[in-house]
Amino acid sequence: MHKMKILVLNCGSSSLKYQLFDMTGEVVMAKGLVERIGIGGSIVKHTKGEDSTVREHDIQDHAQAIKIVLDLLTGPGTGVIASLSEISAVGHRVVHGGEKHAKSVLISDDVIKGIEECVPLAPLHNPANLMGITAMRKLLPGVHNVAAFDTAFHQTMPQAAYIYGIPFEYYERDRVRRYSFHGTSHDFVSARAAEILGRPLDSLKIVTCHLGNGSSLAAVDCGKSVDASMGMGTSCGVLMGTRCGDVDASVLLHIMEQGVGASELSDIIHKKSGLLGVSGVSSDLRDVEKAADKGDRRAKLACEMLYRSVKKYIASFAAVMGGVDAIVFTAGIGENSDLTRKAVVSGLEFMGAKIDDAKNNGLRGKEAVISADDSKVKVLVVPTNEELLIARDTQRLAK
Amino acid sequence: MHKMKILVLNCGSSSLKYQLFDMTGEVVMAKGLVERIGIGGSIVKHTKGEDSTVREHDIQDHAQAIKIVLDLLTGPGTGVIASLSEISAVGHRVVHGGEKHAKSVLISDDVIKGIEECVPLAPLHNPANLMGITAMRKLLPGVHNVAAFDTAFHQTMPQAAYIYGIPFEYYERDRVRRYSFHGTSHDFVSARAAEILGRPLDSLKIVTCHLGNGSSLAAVDCGKSVDASMGMGTSCGVLMGTRCGDVDASVLLHIMEQGVGASELSDIIHKKSGLLGVSGVSSDLRDVEKAADKGDRRAKLACEMLYRSVKKYIASFAAVMGGVDAIVFTAGIGENSDLTRKAVVSGLEFMGAKIDDAKNNGLRGKEAVISADDSKVKVLVVPTNEELLIARDTQRLAK
Repeated sequence: MHKMKILVLNCGSSSLKYQLFDMTGEVVMAKGLVERIGIGGSIVKHTKGEDSTVREHDIQDHAQAIKIVLDLLTGPGTGVIASLSEISAVGHRVVHGGEKHAKSVLISDDVIKGIEECVPLAPLHNPANLMGITAMRKLLPGVHNVAAFDTAFHQTMPQAAYIYGIPFEYYERDRVRRYSFHGTSHDFVSARAAEILGRPLDSLKIVTCHLGNGSSLAAVDCGKSVDASMGMGTSCGVLMGTRCGDVDASVLLHIMEQGVGASELSDIIHKKSGLLGVSGVSSDLRDVEKAADKGDRRAKLACEMLYRSVKKYIASFAAVMGGVDAIVFTAGIGENSDLTRKAVVSGLEFMGAKIDDAKNNGLRGKEAVISADDSKVKVLVVPTNEELLIARDTQRLAK
Repeated sequence: MHKMKILVLNCGSSSLKYQLFDMTGEVVMAKGLVERIGIGGSIVKHTKGEDSTVREHDIQDHAQAIKIVLDLLTGPGTGVIASLSEISAVGHRVVHGGEKHAKSVLISDDVIKGIEECVPLAPLHNPANLMGITAMRKLLPGVHNVAAFDTAFHQTMPQAAYIYGIPFEYYERDRVRRYSFHGTSHDFVSARAAEILGRPLDSLKIVTCHLGNGSSLAAVDCGKSVDASMGMGTSCGVLMGTRCGDVDASVLLHIMEQGVGASELSDIIHKKSGLLGVSGVSSDLRDVEKAADKGDRRAKLACEMLYRSVKKYIASFAAVMGGVDAIVFTAGIGENSDLTRKAVVSGLEFMGAKIDDAKNNGLRGKEAVISADDSKVKVLVVPTNEELLIARDTQRLAK
């Protein structure tokens, strides 16, 4: 057990991220990223300790990409293990588990079938995840594979949180419901926040704010997700880098009535909206905050909209839980933007949340409690580590 | 001034509601409803005190309907005034004033042009409102007409509340933004709540919950609307009788990808959703609550979704204002459903709101403070009276 080495894979449609963990001390031995798989000009970046290796390859598919990764992990100079037999198990991030999977699971033919059945719900992601699983089963036969689903953590939501106000048959027939995503992250940071606070997770009402390029919030009541801001898809909830957040259906109908079809509309709300669409400056909050600081009115507006949408979700999730003990910020923006954290918590004094500027200002990417000492609601920054949680689940299930 | 009699008109596409006020004591002298205008089988119901008269007519258009109303108001038996010259001014409910009108306004040719320009934003309502205005100007020349807009009260919202997270040019080019509606009602009940509490309106943070067949909430900060739950259209926000409330854009895209066009989709989210769509029982909360009480699971779910969505909006609007002093319930459901009020406020103790069951239970259609004596946040029931507010505005402007 203590010698277990776990490889974690996160396959996108043309990319692959990996981390090899030595579970003794939960240390990352090596990690890397393969980009532009199957579209020419593929690049592999492999990191071992302080050393990074960048190589250009012609990579046709995920199987070939994984083979290259395995060679790097064992090869001279780049390698961290003597042979592939040292890999005890492989954990795969899988985006959509539908209603079947409320937890990580050891991959079997049945599980693969279930992931295939969820392809209509995640048409870009689940096929890529499946390519990684299939390739790994072929390349490392006899090694256990585990699937950790982005949706799993939210499967504890009550029906009133996940059913939409449209005719019920859409749920029964098409599985149209709120699933929400980033579950591994919400799970990880809520559990870690309880540890930091030294209080049992099952006694805490926590709102977790995963704010990155994609963003979602979750209401975590006694360790269980009871509401979340993403929905059936990933464009809704708070304002994101290029995604619109919540938008009135009438607005979408209005755009369609101008002759815009479903796929173009999808493109607009996923890729041309959010901070980018409102500010016209950038999808990166750092750029938008800079422009706002220089007086750009639309950049300022975009920032205000982001802060406001997060603040509103925090309060509404507190209402759903009947209160809140802790607010947790994580992911790129949550971990690094003190401005965002400050603006979001300002005005929540009425529910007992107060930030300590001295603790918040300049804090980047580090665990900390940033609420004032007399704040009834604790406010924390907890860097997320989805790969580590996947590795832990994988270790547990592969035993 | 003290002898002023004001006629208030509310024209729908095939209907007309009216009330004649004697502004001395703000008494309703007569009121009524004309239905099925221009579609055959028209019916007029006229009420004077305790007496109601129902007549069938063949009514071609709103001009003819108004002529019949004026005849009833002056005619033998039904009449309450000796001659039309007693009508000092006419107030018209107009749904959409766009960004031009933040207040009620005396109607001029320019104002009519402005209402015409807003037809694309309210294609069903503004044309009907215009028909009423045009007919009245012809039938009572020399009498002032006033327009009171459903959108006007919300024009004080900050940009961060009304801009959507889609590309900014949709606002600049097409005026796509949150307008929200029921403004006259939110205005009326927030002002009345301040009177009941004996506190100046401009010192209060109020969330007004207009819950009827159509429902919206507003954040009223010092008498000004700073956020509202309806949007550019009327299907979003909380769950309604047949309207869906907030729905993920991906859900709408999913439905469209099944070959459903924009107009059918609009039909689904406006007429087949909400309490009706979820419960399958009825669009009337009374029926749905009854079915839920008998154990119908989908009816129970629909009720829970309604309560939950209102509760979440109250909290999010409190966050926007940095707190809340009063929560006000109005309109059909808000005034009459003690179950709804109880379920909505339950769980909001963390922000200082606590209902007094003895005050809430069984209360229907009457002004009351229903919060517990030690509740920091006051909870009120205030029957709405949009017609009276329109009459007051009309009186003030027509002087």
